Amino acid sequence: MKYQTYLIDLDGTMYRGKAKIPEARVFVDNLNQKEIDYYFLTNNTTKTPQQVADNLTNNHQITAKADQVVTPSLATAAYIKDMFGEDISNHSAYVIGEYGLKSAIFGTGIKLNEYDPDVVIVGLDYDVTYHKFELATLAIKRGALFIGTNADTNLPNERGLVPGAGSVISLVETSTQQRAHYIGKPEPEMIDFAVEAKKFDKSSALMVGDNYNTDIKCGISAGVDTLLVYTGVSTHDDIKKVSVKPTHEVESLDKWDV
Amino acid sequence: MKYQTYLIDLDGTMYRGKAKIPEARVFVDNLNQKEIDYYFLTNNTTKTPQQVADNLTNNHQITAKADQVVTPSLATAAYIKDMFGEDISNHSAYVIGEYGLKSAIFGTGIKLNEYDPDVVIVGLDYDVTYHKFELATLAIKRGALFIGTNADTNLPNERGLVPGAGSVISLVETSTQQRAHYIGKPEPEMIDFAVEAKKFDKSSALMVGDNYNTDIKCGISAGVDTLLVYTGVSTHDDIKKVSVKPTHEVESLDKWDV
Repeated sequence: MKYQTYLIDLDGTMYRGKAKIPEARVFVDNLNQKEIDYYFLTNNTTKTPQQVADNLTNNHQITAKADQVVTPSLATAAYIKDMFGEDISNHSAYVIGEYGLKSAIFGTGIKLNEYDPDVVIVGLDYDVTYHKFELATLAIKRGALFIGTNADTNLPNERGLVPGAGSVISLVETSTQQRAHYIGKPEPEMIDFAVEAKKFDKSSALMVGDNYNTDIKCGISAGVDTLLVYTGVSTHDDIKKVSVKPTHEVESLDKWDV
Repeated sequence: MKYQTYLIDLDGTMYRGKAKIPEARVFVDNLNQKEIDYYFLTNNTTKTPQQVADNLTNNHQITAKADQVVTPSLATAAYIKDMFGEDISNHSAYVIGEYGLKSAIFGTGIKLNEYDPDVVIVGLDYDVTYHKFELATLAIKRGALFIGTNADTNLPNERGLVPGAGSVISLVETSTQQRAHYIGKPEPEMIDFAVEAKKFDKSSALMVGDNYNTDIKCGISAGVDTLLVYTGVSTHDDIKKVSVKPTHEVESLDKWDV
């Protein structure tokens, strides 16, 4: 079948860290040539959609606009807007995270409140401190809703695999004896948010990614067909072991007939 | 039976936060009168033994000397001394913790090394940052031994139940996909360390505390008789539910015949 909407992962799929994946650029050029809609679904909450699009365009020559970028920051903002509705400016949040997350959350009109917020949102924060963990812990124990942006335990940097959002969130899960409500892949929330915000049909959409445990599981749980590309995390051996296979598999994205 | 050595918990047993427990003072006075040996076993790693003894003496009028205080900091220091022996100054450690922990660890002669230590020790640190978590994570992933001082998820302060050492350690457990080797109560290590360092007989020792899950379990796992006092965490209802009961139970320590 020919898919009308592509949902595309970034790291391992469009590039590898700072290294280019030339076949990815060919694939996106093909989508553009056939005027097929595509969106980038990343678990990165530290950057704004504009920063993510600029990185793709300037460093990887992959055509991307800010409104094609979907992140847990945006999906979380939509989630709290749904929850509080028109009345959101009378509610408050405490956020552990970088500017990408904070700008999305406080862009909804919700107020910042360190002591008695309605909701605590925890994501990756390179400046996290004990004080921030204490505020989050006390607020959740007082009854605030606890949202975790994404469960990724690690992310790669030039020094190795450093703590990811999932590790930061696990401290707060331990200190509150509560599990966070997660938004990022592999949860279906980001795809459901994209369907709602971008108005496309799930049944003709395809989730494309290199990581079975995040990208492909996200597609499966949202009820969207999936394409695993072997340019990143998951290997053929990994996929032999899983019971629910990706809908499609491909060695590199230039081999995929859009 | 008359016990010859008492191992006594602090918070909930000798005092409640800053509040006095007058019966605790009577109990320690009785021990002194009968010239029975006693030691304080606390999971607090942030203070030095001298600071712990000073707090008991000055704020609670309970007779205590620094060499009567046993902490995970001291037991961890003994553990790495055992492991590295005479050669300890050719080994190195990275420590997340307060001065109480650092002074005990580096007092052994082991070197500080942020990048390639032989052992990483994680405890409660009110100034913990992402950078410290990153250093610990990378070192453990490179093969350093991973020690956690104690598993307490929370501790009380004037604002509520804030994150404890166990919460701080859980971040590093998640980011390294490894479980720490724990030293503090309920593990038996602190009692075993005390037996070795203070030269007393386990079979005539009694572990006294208010918390079944830390103090009493510590005594049980070390093979020492236990006395639960109902002035702190554990309630009669809690103890009804456990299968291995404390050897003795008492409402307050002045009721205990030493």
